[in-house]
Amino acid sequence: MTVTSVSFEPDTPSPSPILIENVQPAVDCGRYPVKREVGDTLEVSADIFREGHDKLTAVIRYRRWDEVDWQETPMRFVDNDRWAGSFELTQNTRVIYRVQAFPDRIETWRDEIIKKRDAGLDVGLEIREGLELFEEMVERATGEDRTRFARAMDAATAASSQHEAIDALLAPSVLQAAHRNRSREGAVTSPELTVIVDRVAARFAAWYEMFPRSAGTEPGTSGTFKDVEKHLPRIRDMGFDVLYFTPIHPIGTTNRKGKNNKLNPEPDDPGVPYAIGSEEGGHDAIEPGLGTEEDFRHLVKQAEEHGLEIALDIAFQASPDHPWTKEHPEWFHIRPDGSIKYAENPPKKYEDIYPINFQNPDWQGLWNELKRVIQHWIDLGVKSFRVDNPHTKPTPFWEWLITEVHRDHPEVIFLSEAFTRPKVMKALAKAGYAQSYSYFTWRNFKQEIMEYLVELTQTDVKEYMRANFFPNTHDILPYILQEGGRPAFKFRLVLAGTLSSVYGIYSGYELCENTPVSGKEEYLNSEKYEYKVWDWDRPGNITDYVATFNRIRREHPALQEYDNLSFLRANNDNVLLYIKALPEEGRYAMVAVNLDPFQPHESEIEIPHHILGTDRTDQIRATELFTGESFIWQGTSESLYLDPDQNPAMIFDLRVWEHKDYEEPCF
Amino acid sequence: MTVTSVSFEPDTPSPSPILIENVQPAVDCGRYPVKREVGDTLEVSADIFREGHDKLTAVIRYRRWDEVDWQETPMRFVDNDRWAGSFELTQNTRVIYRVQAFPDRIETWRDEIIKKRDAGLDVGLEIREGLELFEEMVERATGEDRTRFARAMDAATAASSQHEAIDALLAPSVLQAAHRNRSREGAVTSPELTVIVDRVAARFAAWYEMFPRSAGTEPGTSGTFKDVEKHLPRIRDMGFDVLYFTPIHPIGTTNRKGKNNKLNPEPDDPGVPYAIGSEEGGHDAIEPGLGTEEDFRHLVKQAEEHGLEIALDIAFQASPDHPWTKEHPEWFHIRPDGSIKYAENPPKKYEDIYPINFQNPDWQGLWNELKRVIQHWIDLGVKSFRVDNPHTKPTPFWEWLITEVHRDHPEVIFLSEAFTRPKVMKALAKAGYAQSYSYFTWRNFKQEIMEYLVELTQTDVKEYMRANFFPNTHDILPYILQEGGRPAFKFRLVLAGTLSSVYGIYSGYELCENTPVSGKEEYLNSEKYEYKVWDWDRPGNITDYVATFNRIRREHPALQEYDNLSFLRANNDNVLLYIKALPEEGRYAMVAVNLDPFQPHESEIEIPHHILGTDRTDQIRATELFTGESFIWQGTSESLYLDPDQNPAMIFDLRVWEHKDYEEPCF
Repeated sequence: MTVTSVSFEPDTPSPSPILIENVQPAVDCGRYPVKREVGDTLEVSADIFREGHDKLTAVIRYRRWDEVDWQETPMRFVDNDRWAGSFELTQNTRVIYRVQAFPDRIETWRDEIIKKRDAGLDVGLEIREGLELFEEMVERATGEDRTRFARAMDAATAASSQHEAIDALLAPSVLQAAHRNRSREGAVTSPELTVIVDRVAARFAAWYEMFPRSAGTEPGTSGTFKDVEKHLPRIRDMGFDVLYFTPIHPIGTTNRKGKNNKLNPEPDDPGVPYAIGSEEGGHDAIEPGLGTEEDFRHLVKQAEEHGLEIALDIAFQASPDHPWTKEHPEWFHIRPDGSIKYAENPPKKYEDIYPINFQNPDWQGLWNELKRVIQHWIDLGVKSFRVDNPHTKPTPFWEWLITEVHRDHPEVIFLSEAFTRPKVMKALAKAGYAQSYSYFTWRNFKQEIMEYLVELTQTDVKEYMRANFFPNTHDILPYILQEGGRPAFKFRLVLAGTLSSVYGIYSGYELCENTPVSGKEEYLNSEKYEYKVWDWDRPGNITDYVATFNRIRREHPALQEYDNLSFLRANNDNVLLYIKALPEEGRYAMVAVNLDPFQPHESEIEIPHHILGTDRTDQIRATELFTGESFIWQGTSESLYLDPDQNPAMIFDLRVWEHKDYEEPCF
Repeated sequence: MTVTSVSFEPDTPSPSPILIENVQPAVDCGRYPVKREVGDTLEVSADIFREGHDKLTAVIRYRRWDEVDWQETPMRFVDNDRWAGSFELTQNTRVIYRVQAFPDRIETWRDEIIKKRDAGLDVGLEIREGLELFEEMVERATGEDRTRFARAMDAATAASSQHEAIDALLAPSVLQAAHRNRSREGAVTSPELTVIVDRVAARFAAWYEMFPRSAGTEPGTSGTFKDVEKHLPRIRDMGFDVLYFTPIHPIGTTNRKGKNNKLNPEPDDPGVPYAIGSEEGGHDAIEPGLGTEEDFRHLVKQAEEHGLEIALDIAFQASPDHPWTKEHPEWFHIRPDGSIKYAENPPKKYEDIYPINFQNPDWQGLWNELKRVIQHWIDLGVKSFRVDNPHTKPTPFWEWLITEVHRDHPEVIFLSEAFTRPKVMKALAKAGYAQSYSYFTWRNFKQEIMEYLVELTQTDVKEYMRANFFPNTHDILPYILQEGGRPAFKFRLVLAGTLSSVYGIYSGYELCENTPVSGKEEYLNSEKYEYKVWDWDRPGNITDYVATFNRIRREHPALQEYDNLSFLRANNDNVLLYIKALPEEGRYAMVAVNLDPFQPHESEIEIPHHILGTDRTDQIRATELFTGESFIWQGTSESLYLDPDQNPAMIFDLRVWEHKDYEEPCF
């Protein structure tokens, strides 16, 4: 029974005894990046251990994705073999990070010699072992450290007692130098992880969607970019940050749709902006009715001066008249008769739209052209893109596109307009989308809102997905707004902008526009199919409410974070109560919403001592931010009355009233 | 503003649009194998999806780790983009598995053409697209399938109507052939995962630990392997499967320990079996007092005939007299004076033990020698090894060793004797240990037992760790046994052997031996330090109880599974109630234990209808397996009375009394 020895690679060092497991944060085992924003601190933790009781040391190593030199920061032992450390994310870029751990022979030796010395044992051999460690370090060290080691070794060798020798080797300055120069033999490094460091607007912003062609004043004609400029003060006064336009490209004429999606349009029907491309150009061109490229540049600049940035709607599909259909028919799905396949959801046909074939033989040419389109608009000043139906295009394409765009333009924010199956929506977020549309649009009641928000903000999903909450879109007029009217428009606004730190509305929301196509969650006489002129001061508008609400968001830092949400107890099932907390700054925003648009409700609400770090004997100053009224709260609960017509939602700034026994007067 | 196009690899196909995520089961993202046993079915699931609505197909591919050809089994769509499939684990080996998915152009086409046909649309182009798909498949197909396609295409081409053409192409036999021959273009395959398929004994066995030198009858002299043979019937009658010996190697004399761990032994003290190695040999030798290698072989064979297998204790450490200390001093830690470092936990010294240096420069020679030691005992018939203190040796060494041993000997079971920090214990299990010692030894009360067992059997831990529950070991005499006496010995046995499917006791347990070193959880006059002679029939023994209990385990299949445990409600905090369920076989074992060794307790216990699939109107036949008494239970609860002196634990076989309206008599 002879045994065959295992053949190892000759001269390889022994495998390191150290294990690094469960490095966090990480998405799908590191397959996808996590997301943070400039100014954040990235907390990194891992299980790190080895056999026995020898000491180890761990560090985080990190670098910008476009640089080669690693920076390093120490990790500290937390408990139960968990280590943690952190570093600041100061730049809008991507950062690679990994954990490195190595046997710490210096600390192992120090621990042993001190325990033995303290037990009164002879440590002659341990001193010699220490000197061997120092000899190795002298080899590596330079400058002062080298001198410091040499002196310490001389002193230890010449010492008249073991205690004196130990003191020489373990003097604080020597030990610090030893930590700097200790061997990393046996180091283990975890695989690379990536964090996308977006600009803060990826997390905190209020979006306002409009059809630029609806900016005019003359019925039946196209509003222009110049007309849009006149709206900038109004939009800015409402407190929005991002002004997002539905597509601005030339609209095809073949199979054009008429008003209310009719198949046979009138000659002057302007068509659907999503039927992109005509003889006037494709995705890099501008519909002539809106103005020129120069007008667009001017508008972008004007918007910027009003504190607004322009976001463009990107719909990667073509009308039958798009230049690509002539220049690159191979980019589409070609049928056996040589025709291009139009969009279908059998038996429904969308003959004005050709979907793109992302797997066509010239996929490389196509993908580069789509990247060029994005770059074209970046060059014209656009930094945010709302992407139409990304879930009908391959996710790997988006991962490629966003990564490539971020190489030169990390500031670009992509918003995924995917209303589809949950895992597909999440996959798009993992692929790099900074923001995502969400199911918020249809989450109306207490339990379903809580469950969804816990999933979004309290599970791993928060690491990669930022849900941009839209209570309406040009395609969706939810029943709650149809049925609930003005009170619903108010509280859905508050829910969107406080449950999430990033939210948006589709214009007309401030007018409480809610006339549906009968029985559907769609707008009647939708702007998608016609030119519209709006009276922005029409009765029943909630423009002032929107402005006040956005001011509250801007002034309260706790409302500007995404994952700092906790739900609180309210004993009425129609009343939703939650708090957004920034304990490090002592700032807390508590929100109470009556989810019933029809009836007033009273509720006992919990005073959230476990969040505030207080107890029932403390005084809390609660200031309602819509009215400015203040209250002193004590004990465990308060009672609130929420009337749909008066105050469907209340937002309280909570401050702990500090107890002081006595303060020395300053004279 | 020129844009640089991204350079792709020329002529590469477009990235597949399919994503495969979260393949389960997997341990640490696939870094470590999962564990199952021969006869199990491995259920594999994954999130698999692509953009849009095109169809995809998914399969599991698997192969033995030592074979190259993959086998394949289909996955089925479950819901929410989750797919699942399974295959049988028929051999004691390791199996590699992965998930593969590919766009299903056949099903996509079929779905489209049928929807359009059913909507009464013209499908002339769709038929031509189908024919193109079939032309591709004809290229790939052979034999009958090829003929079948050719005939179907001819029929479709010659058809007098579109309906007829569709029927020709979608005939069931043609469609089945199409599924066999469909293109895998765009296939995506998940990374490889591994399952260790252990033999069933890894999951279901009862271990019995003994010092073979205590098998004799003459005080002060060593029992022998021949003496052990006389105990085989007794041990087998108690119902054990594995007879595990503390180390059987020659014991060093240098710094030998005397009785009760005294530093200065008497001349005739036999030493500690863990101080391995003397002039008589090392880890591949046998202590002469026990007998010869031939005796050992004979014993292994005799044990086998009694249905017992021998497990050996492997302690990779050396006495100062071990041959390695002369032949390979470099395998140890050498001090500056040339001496070998002995084991220490400062200020404690273990001068009779030299730990091994697994990172020494000749680590390759060392590791191969340790593998040779294991192989030596495998060659002598040993298939199970209880490994002493594996947590003081590098985990990567164990991963290497176990993997290498399993290449030729997948039947070998390693039991990790690690009582240490939780993550280290888990890491050893992940590295390949089939079984692990656990904290069960110190989990005595209801809440702590429930929490620990939920962690072990209801979380991911169950994928890689099988806890072998020992109520005592030769090093640990827990307070519950010291204080609780005979009732505690009984119910701790039942807990060990029903909470886990694999458990063991250290001999003397059946005698309720519980004399401690005062104030410690250690045995007084431990066998570790001296020759012992036992009276196996001494009064107060629970040998019959042990035998009955092991018979119950053997007869009830639900007690032979590891992760089929559910805790049930009992309204008395001293009464633990749980059930082990095998619903596919209709077998259920319910266990009630009075955790208080001093006082009887009565408890209302839940009748577990949610597990049995019954309701309060059903009749359950409950048979208590220690007494054989049967009861009919109805309603939602019953009352049990558990008396420490009579019935500290009850095990019920539960059977649902089937309701039959009428049965045709068989004449």
